[in-house]
Amino acid sequence: MQAPTLYRQLAEHYLSAIRHGTLATGDRMPSVRKLMQLHEVSLSTALQMCRYLEAEGWLEARPRSGYFVRQPRRIRLAPALEPKPATVIDPAQFVGIHERVSSIIAQGQRPVKINLARATGAPDLYPHKQLRQLASSLLRQYPLLLTKAISPGGNRDLKSALAKRALDVGISTSADEVIVTNGCIEALNLALRAVAHAGDVIAVESPTFYGLLQVLESLGMKALEIPTSPSTGISLEALELAMQTYDNIKAVVVVPHLQNPLGSIMPDSHKQRLVTLCEAKNIPLIEDDSYSALANGDKIPTAAKHWDQTGNVIYCASLHKILAPGLRLGWMLGGRWQARISMFKYAQTRYNEELSQLIAATFLQSSSYDRHLRKLRTTLTQQREKMAEGIATYFPEGTRLTMPDGGVSVWVEMPPQVSSRAVFDAALRQDILVSPGLLYSNSNRFDHFLRLNCGTHYSHELEEALGVLGRIVLDLARIKKVASA
Amino acid sequence: MQAPTLYRQLAEHYLSAIRHGTLATGDRMPSVRKLMQLHEVSLSTALQMCRYLEAEGWLEARPRSGYFVRQPRRIRLAPALEPKPATVIDPAQFVGIHERVSSIIAQGQRPVKINLARATGAPDLYPHKQLRQLASSLLRQYPLLLTKAISPGGNRDLKSALAKRALDVGISTSADEVIVTNGCIEALNLALRAVAHAGDVIAVESPTFYGLLQVLESLGMKALEIPTSPSTGISLEALELAMQTYDNIKAVVVVPHLQNPLGSIMPDSHKQRLVTLCEAKNIPLIEDDSYSALANGDKIPTAAKHWDQTGNVIYCASLHKILAPGLRLGWMLGGRWQARISMFKYAQTRYNEELSQLIAATFLQSSSYDRHLRKLRTTLTQQREKMAEGIATYFPEGTRLTMPDGGVSVWVEMPPQVSSRAVFDAALRQDILVSPGLLYSNSNRFDHFLRLNCGTHYSHELEEALGVLGRIVLDLARIKKVASA
Ligand SMILES: Cc1ncc(COP(=O)(O)O)c(C=O)c1O
Ligand SMILES: Cc1ncc(COP(=O)(O)O)c(C=O)c1O
Repeated sequence: MQAPTLYRQLAEHYLSAIRHGTLATGDRMPSVRKLMQLHEVSLSTALQMCRYLEAEGWLEARPRSGYFVRQPRRIRLAPALEPKPATVIDPAQFVGIHERVSSIIAQGQRPVKINLARATGAPDLYPHKQLRQLASSLLRQYPLLLTKAISPGGNRDLKSALAKRALDVGISTSADEVIVTNGCIEALNLALRAVAHAGDVIAVESPTFYGLLQVLESLGMKALEIPTSPSTGISLEALELAMQTYDNIKAVVVVPHLQNPLGSIMPDSHKQRLVTLCEAKNIPLIEDDSYSALANGDKIPTAAKHWDQTGNVIYCASLHKILAPGLRLGWMLGGRWQARISMFKYAQTRYNEELSQLIAATFLQSSSYDRHLRKLRTTLTQQREKMAEGIATYFPEGTRLTMPDGGVSVWVEMPPQVSSRAVFDAALRQDILVSPGLLYSNSNRFDHFLRLNCGTHYSHELEEALGVLGRIVLDLARIKKVASA
Repeated sequence: MQAPTLYRQLAEHYLSAIRHGTLATGDRMPSVRKLMQLHEVSLSTALQMCRYLEAEGWLEARPRSGYFVRQPRRIRLAPALEPKPATVIDPAQFVGIHERVSSIIAQGQRPVKINLARATGAPDLYPHKQLRQLASSLLRQYPLLLTKAISPGGNRDLKSALAKRALDVGISTSADEVIVTNGCIEALNLALRAVAHAGDVIAVESPTFYGLLQVLESLGMKALEIPTSPSTGISLEALELAMQTYDNIKAVVVVPHLQNPLGSIMPDSHKQRLVTLCEAKNIPLIEDDSYSALANGDKIPTAAKHWDQTGNVIYCASLHKILAPGLRLGWMLGGRWQARISMFKYAQTRYNEELSQLIAATFLQSSSYDRHLRKLRTTLTQQREKMAEGIATYFPEGTRLTMPDGGVSVWVEMPPQVSSRAVFDAALRQDILVSPGLLYSNSNRFDHFLRLNCGTHYSHELEEALGVLGRIVLDLARIKKVASA
């Protein structure tokens, strides 16, 4: 990992001033000469910095007057709406999300030019070179790794490394308690199977990621969708009301940090109240913490599990989005259901392959992991902002947008008459894959939303794709208006 | 893979004559001079061959008379018994195999000196060097393999290679239909979830491998144990009777080839009748074909799926025991439930990691795979025979033994008063791990059985371990006799 060049460091300094409002839109930047004095840099560094920020859309050059802070276009987009009042609760619905998902997934499985449907970053955002080197050296170090029986209970080194990393999110646990899984998705399956049965009702955020709805349907469980705020996450009032209304809720599943698709982050006070509420009602809480390491800032948000005193919280996490999308590594802490979950894991898929576990263990134990995360967060922040600019440029008036404090996606609300399925189909014909909002609920409430990936380097091609998408949305908005006029 | 040396080729020739009875016990071998003439080999080669067969226990040297064919000790052990008449059928039992298995597995998870509990061969029986080289070269060829999103639907090359290999067991299918899983165990989970629900009854072989009993229990399904012959597999009469008696059997699961733990191989006519029977009763048949490539002979047995005309057979298999115990690769063909199973697989664990799939794909496409299997079968045959010799030498009278036509285990019936749990405990105190018969049924019927692994090179240490085991069994047999006298 090379250190950022001088001009990039300087740019970060001014960007941060702009983001925090210290430098407002229309403000004049210090002159190049002034910059040289202030920061003791060369002319060329000062100029490079200004040109860079201009290219990134944060400054504009006015002839003979110097550089001025510019309003990013995305400011013109309205933020995502808060959900309807807490009293509105969907009844448990079970409309066959499988079929929807299957048909969308099947179509999305051919290679496309621009893939905006992913929930991971591009391959080169992850430490591919280091992981590859680790793989080769581990294969040399353990020549029988691929043909010897996998060590029972999961790889010890990985479990220790994960237990140590859990401290960063406020969880103190031990290697023995870590259960390594095939991604967070297996962890969610195991957690749900441990606490509930077919026919039971499970409270989930709304919107929530289709993977969870699919797991519930495949297990014969019913999703009860609880209104969720794009800024503070699941509505605790709505959840409490739901618990009073339905007596067969057998678990609550939440993604407290960088919720998929909203990107919301629950305030600590909410997480604490949620843990207490579930505890009081004797309803297990399943925490899906797949994304927290991608939250802005140097301190990873504290897990809800941190406030768990009685083992009522099952903690599920993943390395898939933060370390290596090519490895199927997730992990969990089973709380009161630890023994049951361990056994289910063994009965379901046995233990994970050793090589992947060792690669991850070695990398997690090193400071390279911290460096990787810092760099990844910075890159993603830039890319989210550029995507937002692009969306603001090309999407029609009335579009709303979340700007999450981290993560790999933004959540776009299109004009209400635009169907995300129609956008999906039209975009695919132009070799662009998007993730339509209809996947994120058993209801039709999010049919005019799109989740767009920000994990790819913002290129000319990507900008063009946003142009194409914008036109598709615009056309659909007009046709619908005419049809209904 | 190097070609066998001349003396080993010659030894194989005579071994085969002995096995087929062309050379009977007590027969005199051709003299060394005669061997030289007959096979046009040197004196040293002829001598090496005789000494090798002597060391392996097949010949004995009599002073001044030459070499004579010797009766292997194991001939003195009675073969495994046929099951009780078909009329005896256990009611569906659900005694909590999980607990038994958990406690046994937990104890077996610390490293031991001699591990006879495995269902795989030793690491060096598999092509570790070639697989390692493949891994390194694939990582060079695809530098982003570990950090890019896994290709949806499973790796195409592996699916093609498996579809092609399926021809060897008489199944004609296409790459599209192959579902890659985390070992055969995940395939069994998916198959059962696709065709049955909690509370349903599933007919299984008795004894059967504990993994299956565990899967059933974890899914809330009930095992109906059908008597199974050590030579011809599941009793079709008993199964048919069960189908008449119970109207809630929702699936039949069988391991037609090298059944675990019996080692039985169903005759083709039985497999065909089984397929027809399940079809007629409209009960899905789940075929677990994990071991067929380890069956003696150059022709892999034909899968029951071969006779399936209507998609009523779900075929599950694995590379775990035949190619690489370090890879968690299984696969399946979903028959009529293909779409449902694909979706369940996606919802349960997503797709398998790409690197492992590519390693396996590349190796399966080469003739190295065939050479590996041939060598593995030969090695295992020798090792099974030596284990049988050892058991015959050290175990008490009244011991019975299966001698399966392939595979990695033998199934030992001890005197009826000996508890396999007691043997397990005593052996573990001496750092030897065995697989106790009580794991292989929800009943107590196999409590005086052991499954012993033959996948490890027969060493002096291993022989000593068999000596220790023999004494343990002998002691337990005596104590029990005294106690009951
Ligand atoms: C919130 C959330 N949980 C779990 C998963 C699945 O994670 P994994 O790939 O680790 O199985 C995803 C993937 O999209 C996700 O967004
Ligand atoms: C008959 C049988 N089926 C399935 C399995 C599990 O296979 P895998 O390791 O491929 O998951 C085993 C392993 O012992 C087995 O003996």
